[in-house]
Amino acid sequence: MKIYNIRMMTIAVAAILLYASGCKPKNVNSAVSEDAAVKTYVAPGKYDEFYNFVSGGFSGQMSVYGLPSGRLLKVVPVFSVDPEKGWGYSEETKPMLNTSRGFIPWDDLHHMDLSQTNGEIDGRWLFANANNTPRIARIDLTTFRTAEILEIPNSAGNHSSPFITENTEYVVAGTRFSVPMDNDNGDVPINTYKQNFKGTLSFISVDKNDGNMQIAFQILCPGVNFDLSHAGKGPSHGWFFFSCYNSEQANTLLEVNASQKDKDFIMAVNWKKAEEYLKAGKGKKVSVKYAHNKYDDKTHSSKSETMTEVTMLDSKDLPGLCYLIPCPKSPHGCDVDPSGEYFVGSGKLAALIPVFSYSKMIKAIENKEFDGTYQDLPVLKYESVLYGEVQKPGLGPLHTEFDGRGNAITTMFVSSEIVKWNIKDLKIIDRQPTYYSPGHLCIPGGDTKKPNGKYVIVYNKITKDRYLPTGPELAQSAQLFDITGDKMKLILDFPTIGEPHYAQAVAADLIRNKSVKIFNIEQNGNPYASKGESTAKVVRTGNRVDVYATAIRSHFVPDNIEGVKLGDEVYFHITNLEQDWDIPHGFAIKGANNGELLIMPGETQTLKWTPDKVGIYPMYCTDFCSALHQEMSGYVRVSPAGSNVPISFSTGKNEPADSVKTTASVK
Amino acid sequence: MKIYNIRMMTIAVAAILLYASGCKPKNVNSAVSEDAAVKTYVAPGKYDEFYNFVSGGFSGQMSVYGLPSGRLLKVVPVFSVDPEKGWGYSEETKPMLNTSRGFIPWDDLHHMDLSQTNGEIDGRWLFANANNTPRIARIDLTTFRTAEILEIPNSAGNHSSPFITENTEYVVAGTRFSVPMDNDNGDVPINTYKQNFKGTLSFISVDKNDGNMQIAFQILCPGVNFDLSHAGKGPSHGWFFFSCYNSEQANTLLEVNASQKDKDFIMAVNWKKAEEYLKAGKGKKVSVKYAHNKYDDKTHSSKSETMTEVTMLDSKDLPGLCYLIPCPKSPHGCDVDPSGEYFVGSGKLAALIPVFSYSKMIKAIENKEFDGTYQDLPVLKYESVLYGEVQKPGLGPLHTEFDGRGNAITTMFVSSEIVKWNIKDLKIIDRQPTYYSPGHLCIPGGDTKKPNGKYVIVYNKITKDRYLPTGPELAQSAQLFDITGDKMKLILDFPTIGEPHYAQAVAADLIRNKSVKIFNIEQNGNPYASKGESTAKVVRTGNRVDVYATAIRSHFVPDNIEGVKLGDEVYFHITNLEQDWDIPHGFAIKGANNGELLIMPGETQTLKWTPDKVGIYPMYCTDFCSALHQEMSGYVRVSPAGSNVPISFSTGKNEPADSVKTTASVK
Repeated sequence: MKIYNIRMMTIAVAAILLYASGCKPKNVNSAVSEDAAVKTYVAPGKYDEFYNFVSGGFSGQMSVYGLPSGRLLKVVPVFSVDPEKGWGYSEETKPMLNTSRGFIPWDDLHHMDLSQTNGEIDGRWLFANANNTPRIARIDLTTFRTAEILEIPNSAGNHSSPFITENTEYVVAGTRFSVPMDNDNGDVPINTYKQNFKGTLSFISVDKNDGNMQIAFQILCPGVNFDLSHAGKGPSHGWFFFSCYNSEQANTLLEVNASQKDKDFIMAVNWKKAEEYLKAGKGKKVSVKYAHNKYDDKTHSSKSETMTEVTMLDSKDLPGLCYLIPCPKSPHGCDVDPSGEYFVGSGKLAALIPVFSYSKMIKAIENKEFDGTYQDLPVLKYESVLYGEVQKPGLGPLHTEFDGRGNAITTMFVSSEIVKWNIKDLKIIDRQPTYYSPGHLCIPGGDTKKPNGKYVIVYNKITKDRYLPTGPELAQSAQLFDITGDKMKLILDFPTIGEPHYAQAVAADLIRNKSVKIFNIEQNGNPYASKGESTAKVVRTGNRVDVYATAIRSHFVPDNIEGVKLGDEVYFHITNLEQDWDIPHGFAIKGANNGELLIMPGETQTLKWTPDKVGIYPMYCTDFCSALHQEMSGYVRVSPAGSNVPISFSTGKNEPADSVKTTASVK
Repeated sequence: MKIYNIRMMTIAVAAILLYASGCKPKNVNSAVSEDAAVKTYVAPGKYDEFYNFVSGGFSGQMSVYGLPSGRLLKVVPVFSVDPEKGWGYSEETKPMLNTSRGFIPWDDLHHMDLSQTNGEIDGRWLFANANNTPRIARIDLTTFRTAEILEIPNSAGNHSSPFITENTEYVVAGTRFSVPMDNDNGDVPINTYKQNFKGTLSFISVDKNDGNMQIAFQILCPGVNFDLSHAGKGPSHGWFFFSCYNSEQANTLLEVNASQKDKDFIMAVNWKKAEEYLKAGKGKKVSVKYAHNKYDDKTHSSKSETMTEVTMLDSKDLPGLCYLIPCPKSPHGCDVDPSGEYFVGSGKLAALIPVFSYSKMIKAIENKEFDGTYQDLPVLKYESVLYGEVQKPGLGPLHTEFDGRGNAITTMFVSSEIVKWNIKDLKIIDRQPTYYSPGHLCIPGGDTKKPNGKYVIVYNKITKDRYLPTGPELAQSAQLFDITGDKMKLILDFPTIGEPHYAQAVAADLIRNKSVKIFNIEQNGNPYASKGESTAKVVRTGNRVDVYATAIRSHFVPDNIEGVKLGDEVYFHITNLEQDWDIPHGFAIKGANNGELLIMPGETQTLKWTPDKVGIYPMYCTDFCSALHQEMSGYVRVSPAGSNVPISFSTGKNEPADSVKTTASVK
């Protein structure tokens, strides 16, 4: 009886405690799920802990996610037009997408790498590659905008890019498709690949102060396919490692013909040696045209400059510059551990993961432990450089990141899993399924000297049944694992924009306080800015009409314009006079064969319009800005060519509708 | 001692139970947060409960989110180009963005409405408006693709659109900006607004079988600004209600000049009466050009047709067609409750919310309770139609949805809150802050006869400090509230694409099982399809080169093409031979002044390329499709104009590189 009472009381008190804690009894599965729910939940108004910068792949853009919530915070336009933001449509941004072949509206952005100082993320810039029309972009992490795009000549399929050295001395860009060099005769049969097709590795220097990029040198290489790369660090600082496949030099049906050999290569490049050769005048100046585009936050506009020359170092003529290390089999990922001693080649058709030793490589070079040459380049003996092999890791190893606790995690594309292994003993510690076919993975700082091993994010290529179906086309998917324990725990699936390839993540604190909120209107250097409503005006110069307009809640000045004629080119220069965070204005005019403008506080942006029909054209603010946003509109009257309607415009004063300002035509 | 033991045991057992439940003791705040975490968490591999279709606003696209997770499942291109998906870049999709003014690359998509049968969501189609260049789109919810776009002539700022009747008899489209009619002389001074500017309301019929849209009729209206609308339902089926502001007919500085009057109007339109007038021949045929674009899933391509006529009903000449109901003050949202008896006007400058009664309106019309006319249209007495006013609801009421339990929820833009009130007694039940400045809101089915009152999602205009900063431009934000209890509980913030305006949500089960996974290759009716590798070929016709190519893991046939010359126009017709879900292939060629192609299983898509330089151009699959995806590539050789290199191409057999197939030129 007493025991019964005690039991009853115990249950009652436990029930009360459970109730008070807001927690219902549950089974183990739901407890696991609840634990994951709580771990990934970022309550309304709270900030995520990490920024996750994810490549958009075939979208050409870069996405910014918050972790652990997996929320998409922003899509930053980089290589593809974005009519929403006016990217590639406004006069100020059009030059950013210029190339030696003219304006290109799309590209394929595969990899990103954050700038580093002393081998750690410094939070200044993010670099990204354009794969199709070879280019490297620099994104400014104070504005989250693309600040610079540099075209890479003598390249095609700019894939082993844009990986960086530990002080951002260089960003590299390696060609995936070998091709005849830009100034060679390109009209050659494709089956003359072996004679006529070459690869290049470009080393792009980055100015420490302003980030300005320039091609320091290119290294001419045999015609193979360079796939991925990472820089050495610590002891191996001064070296760069590139995976390459198709050492068969096949040029058709690569699926079969480039998978013949048991081993392809990792190419180790001694870039300090390259610097010595350059100093010694061993570089050859090569005339070639490529574009260099820069956006200036002071003028809020960009310029495209045509470059005319690169300096080429020919790998086969310069001893000590490039060494080939055999690597099974069609290597893809090429990753360097935080210590800089180990580098990992992931052969996508290999049944093991080779781990190479930097110090063994140096000794092998010193001791000339060579296994002949390939295309005139020295091939080091596999065993002489090999630290060891991870046995039976799974099928289709692609990429490896590091947790900072002595472990590596590798994605297995074919067997759809991630595998955690110890860098020293090469023993497998854990494996977890992924859904499905993982490509890249990312640990915050996972390719630097100081990884933050709290999470790994895995970017999968196949989604299939993981989300509600959306027709034949499905989002690709990221999966977030907690890796703080021995076992990796899947805690969240989140869909992604485009096709995520490589990604970077960083503790939010490093970046968030540097974020620009507004542009200072006083410092607006755009030559078409109107810094106050009294300076708004409309000026005709021949058949060009410049509208210098202002936007502030909730009106444009001018909001009515007459005297535009068929045959005119009209430039709307809209200055957003707001100086509050998160008060953009938008601008669009009916029927314009163009995008819109989104103008941030303090900024000026320009939309070009060539009216094609007489009539009245409403224009309006496209970004809901105030309770009277719907009233933020105006009209443009377009008269026939030769009409004598003079330029006139409203002045923003609450005047009778017919007392508008009239300006004489200016020729 | 015994008591002590009992207490100890109780605590021990409680602790064990708590531990076993995976739940740590916590304070009330964290319990609330944990409760919200669990409510919004959708575990990896689990499906969301609702689809949330959200307008992209100035992005021009439509986003699909899962609820309650807030995960972005897909962005569907509608009115803006999308080089990622080839939307507006492939030959098959270019016609979809054609208008009477030619190709337009961008628009501003504000509102969406799901098709209904008997006043309930039927899950077939989703309609969306283009605000800037007036158009209505129909999205097919089996493919999640834009199936049809119809241009709306005689309109500007197509804003009170595309709301639908309870059996999808009509989709309406009302002009926000009044303008001279398209075929009037548009070269008129803007200050002749009152004489020359008109508004129109377009009623677009929807074919019950295939969804085909056509403009059944337009109603010519006074020159005011039509803002939003909703159809009657149940007893009020046959009527449509439109809010309109700027009854002042101002044409400059609307912020001030269109906010003068104490009341503007809701216009009640009797569309059954309109049908009678049409039958009686009261419609006037008006010649005007507009585009009608349709995508065909059998041919995987679209056509743009030019329409030449609309039938116009002049509201001022046709008694009983349109009535004006005074509504304070600059009304914006116009929402009809599930019963169809009540309609709500949200005056954005009003300090109350008027609720109108449909049955009182009918009586007032019968009893001729008029308050004069406005622009020749009868104005009903406010009090005669008013059911009652919600007093002190907050500041800046914008939009109202219904929970199906007799309550309405209204967003308050200025006071940044949502307010729940009872439709019958008009008493306020609850108010909750939102962050910040809410625009539209959405309850699944919240504008139909059968709302699902589990959640309300609020779409805010200002985000400011709610997420990690991303420079001057921030994502706009949605907030998810649990509304199953009396108090509305905020459980999740999630950022959104573009600027969300109206949204729709529906239980996933209604749609997900109808989702198309692949296109049947046997039924592919694209005239340029290659249904097998043996039919792949390259054909020259004058300076046009058609490449009939196939894609299947992991190769294109052909993968090498020679004989293309400068001055040629090359059309790559790529057929994806896969018949598995989620195995798209992509296609791009270096330096093309174009987007890419993403080709779904069984589909054919075409990229046009005009090479501008002699050389070797790599082409490749842009969507990581297999372990040998990197090998899925090829080359095109471009020779000088006049070169005698014949057309030749690889056949996909593992042949020596020089035994390619050569075709004679066809003139």
